[in-house]
Amino acid sequence: MAKKKVAVIGLGSMGLGIARSILKAGHAIWGVDIDAKRMEDFRSDGGSPGALAEVAGDLDAVVTVVVNAAQTEAVLFGEGGIVGGLHRGAVVASCATVAPDFARDMEARCNEAGVHYLDAPISGGTVRAASGELSIMASGAPEAFAAIRPVFDAMARNVFELGDAAGPGSAMKAVNQLLVGVHIATLAEAMTFGMTQGISPEKFMEIIPVSAGTSWVIEDRGPHIVAGDYAPLSVADIWPKDLGIVSDIARSAKFSAPMVNAALQQFLAASGMGLGQEDDAAVAKLYARNAGLTLPGEGQG
Amino acid sequence: MAKKKVAVIGLGSMGLGIARSILKAGHAIWGVDIDAKRMEDFRSDGGSPGALAEVAGDLDAVVTVVVNAAQTEAVLFGEGGIVGGLHRGAVVASCATVAPDFARDMEARCNEAGVHYLDAPISGGTVRAASGELSIMASGAPEAFAAIRPVFDAMARNVFELGDAAGPGSAMKAVNQLLVGVHIATLAEAMTFGMTQGISPEKFMEIIPVSAGTSWVIEDRGPHIVAGDYAPLSVADIWPKDLGIVSDIARSAKFSAPMVNAALQQFLAASGMGLGQEDDAAVAKLYARNAGLTLPGEGQG
Repeated sequence: MAKKKVAVIGLGSMGLGIARSILKAGHAIWGVDIDAKRMEDFRSDGGSPGALAEVAGDLDAVVTVVVNAAQTEAVLFGEGGIVGGLHRGAVVASCATVAPDFARDMEARCNEAGVHYLDAPISGGTVRAASGELSIMASGAPEAFAAIRPVFDAMARNVFELGDAAGPGSAMKAVNQLLVGVHIATLAEAMTFGMTQGISPEKFMEIIPVSAGTSWVIEDRGPHIVAGDYAPLSVADIWPKDLGIVSDIARSAKFSAPMVNAALQQFLAASGMGLGQEDDAAVAKLYARNAGLTLPGEGQG
Repeated sequence: MAKKKVAVIGLGSMGLGIARSILKAGHAIWGVDIDAKRMEDFRSDGGSPGALAEVAGDLDAVVTVVVNAAQTEAVLFGEGGIVGGLHRGAVVASCATVAPDFARDMEARCNEAGVHYLDAPISGGTVRAASGELSIMASGAPEAFAAIRPVFDAMARNVFELGDAAGPGSAMKAVNQLLVGVHIATLAEAMTFGMTQGISPEKFMEIIPVSAGTSWVIEDRGPHIVAGDYAPLSVADIWPKDLGIVSDIARSAKFSAPMVNAALQQFLAASGMGLGQEDDAAVAKLYARNAGLTLPGEGQG
């Protein structure tokens, strides 16, 4: 297998897992974060030493795992941005959830600099990031896919190739986020609605996963509510952002999206009441408080 | 196995499948419908002859598979209603989706007549009704469960016993319908949203079922939209009714249910535009028309 020289920019919960997966596969890897401690921790895992600016010209690929479009633009083209230092033909794979139009803009600017851009949002959560089993919904030039293949193989179980230019990768991610976000709010609504009718969360999770009402989200997030465990595997505040992106894209396309917008309001309210840094299943607390219900693990008052 | 004498009231798409499954298991069965032709057809399948009024006193169980609460009350207690003719200890199993309060009322009135009432909504659709593989979400007296067990075994793959009185069966069904109805509207919204961004329904169904956004509904109904096949396995007009029941229960409980009510509006609009007797996946046509999109199988104008 071809060993690559790779930088991962953004060592948060997703980026650190990705960086470690790429390292484990035997590539030379530089981990970069605005938090110096995170960089140092990753270096002690075995990440390569040396300032990124000095090695940029040797890199085969850069994987950006930052929070949003603004951070993506900053790390690529802002002060000290990496694109200017890359050699011609290097590949930037951008993993943040962004609007398709933004992805097309980044691709055009990378291409002007002689650098490939892959519109490569990821799905799967921190556990799969750590185990190298993400899904990547990607679009971009075939040469870029070919060059980065060993890196993607280290990061992901599924790589969906959605086209030969930026845009469809981010569009597919938006579709998936639409579904996941709406399904989380719907799980919370259904489970707490059941409680008003005497159906306990435990009974709900016994029956719904084997019934027509089930979803991946119910099977993944439902147990968090039953256990009263809101340790953030994926924070609630992702959803005002990601459903906001979906809502913005929909509005631009004159597409009426009532389910998205209903779910968006629930996550905004959850964030407004201070639940934003809890696990996203904590949107159930909004429903419970609105209905005077006590969820598992909450004080009995 | 104990052979039972059973009447099935309501030989629509679900009831006929149930009646045939019970017949196949070797029980003596009378099929009843307001449509004389349906009764005759079932009799030619091997259903028992003879007027129900004459045999009511011999029946062990009555399974009602009618459309709603009003029909349930009519067949049990209306003119010529069956409860008055049953022997003490006979079991009525009511399969319609109804409010828990209605189920409790029916139980009380049956008990006054010396008859057991099982609050026994069903889930699974016409295909599983025909193959005897439904799910039954049931609550009621343990003696009633014991007496009807061979009949339920003929109808269902899963029998969830939710308590020893009416109410929780219907409550659990309402929870399941909340999820299924919201998930259908969400599938339609996500798939057509994707189309506005260049993601085809085929590509959607290739990627979403193996991603975090999936649901049972997506895997079951998504192929209908891809095929442009709206032959009604389950008609869209079920949803204004069932989500209406959920919405009514929620309002009574002072439970704010924005996801349910957003989905309810979409199904009302689909029904209002004349799609009510098509398969429920046809709610996608509402989204497509609202956005000027052409779904698979639709005329190209």
